[in-house]
Amino acid sequence: MTIAFQGEPGAYSEAAAHRFAPSADVLPCRSFEDVFTAVVSGRALYGILPMENSVGGSIHRNYDLLVEHELPIVGEVELAVDHCLLGRPGAKLADIRTVFSHPQALAQCEEYLRSLGAVEIVAVYDTAGGAKMVADGSRADAGAVASRRAAELFADGVQDYASNLTRFVLISRSLDSVADANKTSLVFALKSKPGALFRALSCFALRDINLTKLESRPIRGRPWEYMFYVDVDISRHALEYGRAVTQLGEFTQWVRTLGSYRAADKR
Amino acid sequence: MTIAFQGEPGAYSEAAAHRFAPSADVLPCRSFEDVFTAVVSGRALYGILPMENSVGGSIHRNYDLLVEHELPIVGEVELAVDHCLLGRPGAKLADIRTVFSHPQALAQCEEYLRSLGAVEIVAVYDTAGGAKMVADGSRADAGAVASRRAAELFADGVQDYASNLTRFVLISRSLDSVADANKTSLVFALKSKPGALFRALSCFALRDINLTKLESRPIRGRPWEYMFYVDVDISRHALEYGRAVTQLGEFTQWVRTLGSYRAADKR
Repeated sequence: MTIAFQGEPGAYSEAAAHRFAPSADVLPCRSFEDVFTAVVSGRALYGILPMENSVGGSIHRNYDLLVEHELPIVGEVELAVDHCLLGRPGAKLADIRTVFSHPQALAQCEEYLRSLGAVEIVAVYDTAGGAKMVADGSRADAGAVASRRAAELFADGVQDYASNLTRFVLISRSLDSVADANKTSLVFALKSKPGALFRALSCFALRDINLTKLESRPIRGRPWEYMFYVDVDISRHALEYGRAVTQLGEFTQWVRTLGSYRAADKR
Repeated sequence: MTIAFQGEPGAYSEAAAHRFAPSADVLPCRSFEDVFTAVVSGRALYGILPMENSVGGSIHRNYDLLVEHELPIVGEVELAVDHCLLGRPGAKLADIRTVFSHPQALAQCEEYLRSLGAVEIVAVYDTAGGAKMVADGSRADAGAVASRRAAELFADGVQDYASNLTRFVLISRSLDSVADANKTSLVFALKSKPGALFRALSCFALRDINLTKLESRPIRGRPWEYMFYVDVDISRHALEYGRAVTQLGEFTQWVRTLGSYRAADKR
């Protein structure tokens, strides 16, 4: 079983894939689009996508791709971001003069890196590759910001905000339903007018269906229209979900169920 | 009049401050917390904070700071992110071997930078400082990713996603109400149970108050409680708003009006 992910080996998406299926093979992809292509073409059975981060918010790009493609969500994983400063075995933190990492990781650790003083910061395309380069190299004054791995660990939790969780979903080409699904993600569009969202939410409230996420997003190029991301605590195969979505169709411009799956274990 | 912003001169937040008040003095701050401190201490009359980006989503950190502090939102600005690749006057794009920028900007231009081929990417703390360094320096093979400015422009719109808007708000120490306010931001908390949000939204729907943003966010450390960010198209001084918030108090754990202000011009 192969899971496609965006990034290089050692990326957080790869760790999320192994959290979902510890023995899975993984397929690194350059972009999120390439993750979809890998699944459509059958090169991977699953793809994994980060959807939201507890510091940065929802990743709208991946919601757009889910709406564009027909691939259903079939699973969910939550992962804590834990950036570490790593160095060469035997090296000392005080000797570090250059730090390598991916721009996103550098941005999330800006305060910590500043606290190191006059250190040169070098962006690389791959946190894991930066760590490997430092670990395998001969420079005792080089460090890398990456997830925990084989190199010497100088400091962990070096990201600026301690509570930094990312939620990932798994996509698949298979239309088989997930037997133990207890959560469903959907997207719908509304014209902006008073009461529009209230009417839409009545479809769930009148059937005692619990919402665990609701987010509005303006639709670019269509002023006064909004897209809504909604997660509900029910399988799409439950009778009440079907009734809710049928009624929702009356009150919205369009509705798309993105998938029904087992909710991530909360850790 | 002074506006405090997070970042260095030339940052997008500084451009947003000047969009709000073209002749304002600006005060660069190291962190978002420092922006609040500058306003509380009176060193700045206003502070400006990015709240959400059309690619990256809401900046939860700044919502947290708005809830922690007592400073009201008094204005709003929208700004298109337009990263450019800049170089030394007289230099050529084909000669570029090194590109300097802030990690966030590098991350947003990853695809473009990759397309340049074997170019060394160097992270600096400040897009504007990187651009100045390149423009003033003697290296014809050095470039910077930054907003448009005095250096030679090689390419604009080099960010990976064309539609990249950031919404900023202005905070102030003054409790004077904004005379022409037509938009209000508020935050409230709900226990997660079916129908809880539906009841809360009835306060607005029953009074024909239009919502322009609604976003749920789990409250860390309090499983099954959610915070909601809401923007409504009405002044907090309107009678109907007061009635809506009074009723909202019955259905929520707590409510905080973050401020009432003139909505940003849509460009």
